[in-house]
Amino acid sequence: MFKKKSKYNVAVMGATGAVGEEMLKILEERRFPVDRLVLLASARSLGKKYSFHGKQIAVEELKENSFNGIDIVLASAGGSISKKFAPFAVKAGAIVIDNTSAYRMDPNVPLVIPEINPEDIQKHKGIIANPNCSTIIMLVPVYPIHKTNRVKRIFVSTYQSASGAGARAMRELEEQSRDVLAGRPAKKEIFPHQIAFNLFSHNSAIKDEGYNEEELKMVKETQKIFHDTKIKITPTTVRVPVFRAHSESIYLELEKTPDIARIRKILSKAPGVKVVDDREKNYFPMPLEASGQDDVLVGRLRKDLSSSKGLCLFVSGDQLRKGAALNAVQIAEILIQ
Amino acid sequence: MFKKKSKYNVAVMGATGAVGEEMLKILEERRFPVDRLVLLASARSLGKKYSFHGKQIAVEELKENSFNGIDIVLASAGGSISKKFAPFAVKAGAIVIDNTSAYRMDPNVPLVIPEINPEDIQKHKGIIANPNCSTIIMLVPVYPIHKTNRVKRIFVSTYQSASGAGARAMRELEEQSRDVLAGRPAKKEIFPHQIAFNLFSHNSAIKDEGYNEEELKMVKETQKIFHDTKIKITPTTVRVPVFRAHSESIYLELEKTPDIARIRKILSKAPGVKVVDDREKNYFPMPLEASGQDDVLVGRLRKDLSSSKGLCLFVSGDQLRKGAALNAVQIAEILIQ
Repeated sequence: MFKKKSKYNVAVMGATGAVGEEMLKILEERRFPVDRLVLLASARSLGKKYSFHGKQIAVEELKENSFNGIDIVLASAGGSISKKFAPFAVKAGAIVIDNTSAYRMDPNVPLVIPEINPEDIQKHKGIIANPNCSTIIMLVPVYPIHKTNRVKRIFVSTYQSASGAGARAMRELEEQSRDVLAGRPAKKEIFPHQIAFNLFSHNSAIKDEGYNEEELKMVKETQKIFHDTKIKITPTTVRVPVFRAHSESIYLELEKTPDIARIRKILSKAPGVKVVDDREKNYFPMPLEASGQDDVLVGRLRKDLSSSKGLCLFVSGDQLRKGAALNAVQIAEILIQ
Repeated sequence: MFKKKSKYNVAVMGATGAVGEEMLKILEERRFPVDRLVLLASARSLGKKYSFHGKQIAVEELKENSFNGIDIVLASAGGSISKKFAPFAVKAGAIVIDNTSAYRMDPNVPLVIPEINPEDIQKHKGIIANPNCSTIIMLVPVYPIHKTNRVKRIFVSTYQSASGAGARAMRELEEQSRDVLAGRPAKKEIFPHQIAFNLFSHNSAIKDEGYNEEELKMVKETQKIFHDTKIKITPTTVRVPVFRAHSESIYLELEKTPDIARIRKILSKAPGVKVVDDREKNYFPMPLEASGQDDVLVGRLRKDLSSSKGLCLFVSGDQLRKGAALNAVQIAEILIQ
């Protein structure tokens, strides 16, 4: 279905966003075989230029006819933009790897974390969805455990960075922090509440039963990626004043009693994961160290004090890289293999 | 055993620390019947003065003979200082309300949260212990639920502020934040890791099975305060870049299926608790709003999606007030009633 070439014409939709900019870096770093690179964004961003392998590339306005001759679209301009433009890209013959929530739960669209379900990529009908960042960062280290000792239930509380709400939210954290330190009131534009030196329940809409959209994504996406509608997930999502990596406190209820030494060994060999678990030095995953890294850091591996089948872990992963842009580029890499 | 008077001689041990300073404010605000106020600290703090009801009071050096004529000691100068000096205070006839971990698990010392087990105060033999801040902030909102629907198990992940490590840790967060915003490296003195725009596993020593001291306190103190050694607690404690209120994501496994409307009603009438739970406005407990407040804020009340007997909540409470100084002064108030 997907024609193999030596080089591909790639369009980045939402090229000027935090994830879009990260996609450019990752395509360059990983030497993705790009022939023509097209940077698409709204008319507001016309005139902006980005460097790619030494060449300056100007941003073009995203239009219905932007996809002529494009092989792969990496989309990260928001759900409504993907809903509107992905069909035109598919009609023009491109494969869309969509980083928005627009198509994730569509039964015709595979939802893929390359370390977990790469085989699902081949079922695509023109669109492949990239999971939500919190889902990816949770599942990359949970899956290797799940493979050897089935995960029946997950309790997860997140510590999510500003980057999940885009580049402007990161600037808001920076500006509010400056204001607070100078004794000035913090100005709120992107987030509903002050993010500097504060934290708050994730700013997505609250749905049924009091869960917010971010939490419901973690539940439904995990079930889809694991092909397991029985796995139980109880999430609480929280924004913290950190720039760009998400952390998560995870509790797993397993089928069998876990052996911590064995789990550590499994994780140390798992793709996309780095074990950071030094009890003596009190050194565990931190968002500052996860930032800019491809691997999801995992540590604080310990048994539950009150249940023989429980396992606790703490993870930090770069929200813009593995949580978004890297995962999308990895999908593209498998597609062209 | 405790002689009732119209006014009491009160000593604050560790008067120049973050909790000590808060104790002064609270004694003043609540018009505690103080006759003589003695401010005790190490020799380093000699010369410092604090205002109390309009009078300037000089800090005195803490010595073995500092407790002559003192009725109540509010101690918050660290565990080893309490271990050393509390016996002298008791010998001098004072009652020590100890905010450190020194005596909390001593079977002869009651461990008290006034909203939960005030009756234990009367069992004292000269020392009454104030629980750890994370324990207090968790239990004040959990107890009213527990009273009507027994809590069998608690999963808790904390979001703990810098204030828990004292005034110097709060300044470290401030200074590191300034440095990072100015592009300078963050200097680490109090915390083992950068706290500005970062978070890390709680900086207490890691003990058996990989749990840190803060987590083990939450387990053992809860069992002692609830007089229930069977209650199961699985904690994960984390420091976040917030100045002075702790937040906690709490999951309760209850004996019976909870009714959310009824739980909300129970909590809205419970002492020491304020319900902040507006789903439509996405407005829930935040440390910024809990700071300076006596009540522990509680919200995000919702059923577990995967178990009929589960209940989720999110709380924020001022670590220096209800988590420490206020709880100690409340114990003193009951003592003199």
